[in-house]
Amino acid sequence: MRQRLSLDEYTKGIRSGDRVILSRAITVIESQHDEDRQLSKLLLHNILPNTGNSFRIGITGVPGVGKSTFIESFGTYITGKGKKLAVLTVDPSSKKTGGSILGDKTRMEKLSRDPDAFIRPSASNLALGGVARNTREAMLLCEAAGFEIIIVETVGVGQSETIVKGMTDFFLLLMLAGAGDELQGIKKGIMEMADTIAINKADGANKAIADLAVQEYSNAIHLFPRSESGFTPKVVTCSALDNTGIDDIWQIILDYQKHSSANGYFNKNRQGQNLEWMYDSLKQALENSFFESDAVVKNLEKIEKYVAEGKELPIYAAEKLVEMFLRSDKE
Amino acid sequence: MRQRLSLDEYTKGIRSGDRVILSRAITVIESQHDEDRQLSKLLLHNILPNTGNSFRIGITGVPGVGKSTFIESFGTYITGKGKKLAVLTVDPSSKKTGGSILGDKTRMEKLSRDPDAFIRPSASNLALGGVARNTREAMLLCEAAGFEIIIVETVGVGQSETIVKGMTDFFLLLMLAGAGDELQGIKKGIMEMADTIAINKADGANKAIADLAVQEYSNAIHLFPRSESGFTPKVVTCSALDNTGIDDIWQIILDYQKHSSANGYFNKNRQGQNLEWMYDSLKQALENSFFESDAVVKNLEKIEKYVAEGKELPIYAAEKLVEMFLRSDKE
Repeated sequence: MRQRLSLDEYTKGIRSGDRVILSRAITVIESQHDEDRQLSKLLLHNILPNTGNSFRIGITGVPGVGKSTFIESFGTYITGKGKKLAVLTVDPSSKKTGGSILGDKTRMEKLSRDPDAFIRPSASNLALGGVARNTREAMLLCEAAGFEIIIVETVGVGQSETIVKGMTDFFLLLMLAGAGDELQGIKKGIMEMADTIAINKADGANKAIADLAVQEYSNAIHLFPRSESGFTPKVVTCSALDNTGIDDIWQIILDYQKHSSANGYFNKNRQGQNLEWMYDSLKQALENSFFESDAVVKNLEKIEKYVAEGKELPIYAAEKLVEMFLRSDKE
Repeated sequence: MRQRLSLDEYTKGIRSGDRVILSRAITVIESQHDEDRQLSKLLLHNILPNTGNSFRIGITGVPGVGKSTFIESFGTYITGKGKKLAVLTVDPSSKKTGGSILGDKTRMEKLSRDPDAFIRPSASNLALGGVARNTREAMLLCEAAGFEIIIVETVGVGQSETIVKGMTDFFLLLMLAGAGDELQGIKKGIMEMADTIAINKADGANKAIADLAVQEYSNAIHLFPRSESGFTPKVVTCSALDNTGIDDIWQIILDYQKHSSANGYFNKNRQGQNLEWMYDSLKQALENSFFESDAVVKNLEKIEKYVAEGKELPIYAAEKLVEMFLRSDKE
């Protein structure tokens, strides 16, 4: 990593919308070094009053659904409306493929050259929890840098959807017509999370079956439990190739914004997400301080041995370790 | 609850194999009262040297597969061999249906009258974690009371299988022929956990398709990753109605016992299970002492409010709360 800037330089740079500094600051929050963790905590604390003002859109869909091409069209449409857009990804699988930075820049070529768009993929080599934390923090930095719309993109493979749903205001699910739910690997639970389902690649010969799929999904959606937001999920078609349906989706998002602000759901949801984030961090912080404490480091191995051999009851050993931890901290 | 006995009375009663006292002791460990928790900790500590000597068999299969009838036949076969048998259940859904004690006694009528068998269903109204803890503790009490074979039964619906697999030595999956995996709701992951798959209800007109199913499952099993025990899972048929196949399953279990003792897997697995249990308890104990500490009780609500309103960064608040907790404990 290049030399670090000072806390003040990062803070001012981000507040003034400096994209180079924003990018370097995200690298700091992604770093696992103690120094960097400390710096990012102070930085996030500084910019906190400048956050929370964007609209956060989660987008998911299995590989092959045309996510990148969709985000390229949709993103260009958004910046065309005069909005500044940041695109982040929650992609725990990127550790396998590697080189996702190059990948993302290539697959959204037009958007990556757009001066009003900022594209930043997940850091690789991290477990889902780490990716989620980074993305949440990067989102705050982008907001402080003046980005008004944040897209958080993920792949439709399960747990990462729940995490993205838990950090966004609106959840868009991209599907293909005629592929069958099973084939698309989309679980019913993910469909239930969606505020809108867009049948992508509704162009050429696909148009007719896409319209049919809209009918089918609309019927399916009416059987789902009513969503907490009180907003009835929409099902639409779109084509990034023909550039159709993009404006419909944008209009749905504007309607959703109006609806959820009016009935108080927008704020209630954000507040709930903040608390969830705190409780996630809490568990992590508790376990970290436990496993790093001298008393635990000193005794864990010995106690593990007793427990493994059945000489000490596991629940008893656990309570003893917690007592040791709390007592040692006293000294 | 009837009046509690003394720690000494419970300890001696269990060690002497007194079933009434065993039953009352399980009620104590299921209780959530502080007094009872304290008592059960001491009791478990007392009887620990008398535990670990049974062979623990996990049995699963979706509702309708004929689990109760199978356990009735299988259990009667085991007691017929002169072994003392305890049957426990991990059934988080029992909170919905209620009255599962009556249910269990009725559905295993013969076994429940067998002087060498002890049947105890899950306490109701508990989350899966609580049921798991109770069952683990009840298992130890049964072992101390001289039961040589413990069957832990669960329904084939997902998470509870993993928990039962994590507390038993041998995992038996009951299936039906011709129902299709999808229909039976059994995930591939559960099939991979099985040490043996038994196609139940292989009687009358079903016999032929059951034999076919054996072939299919045998082929499927060979595609699974090699199990850690080094034991190749078996696929057999059985019929509780015709009382066939029961002795085959018992023989497989004896073979498995010999095999896993010889290669050291039996002990290694038990040791790993003990550690897993300790780490589960550890998280719980840590969180309990955190949420019960004065500093947290006093400040949590205020900090939650700040966090919800976006005035405090969630990760920052989490760290602050952990610091408060550790400091307060010092005073």
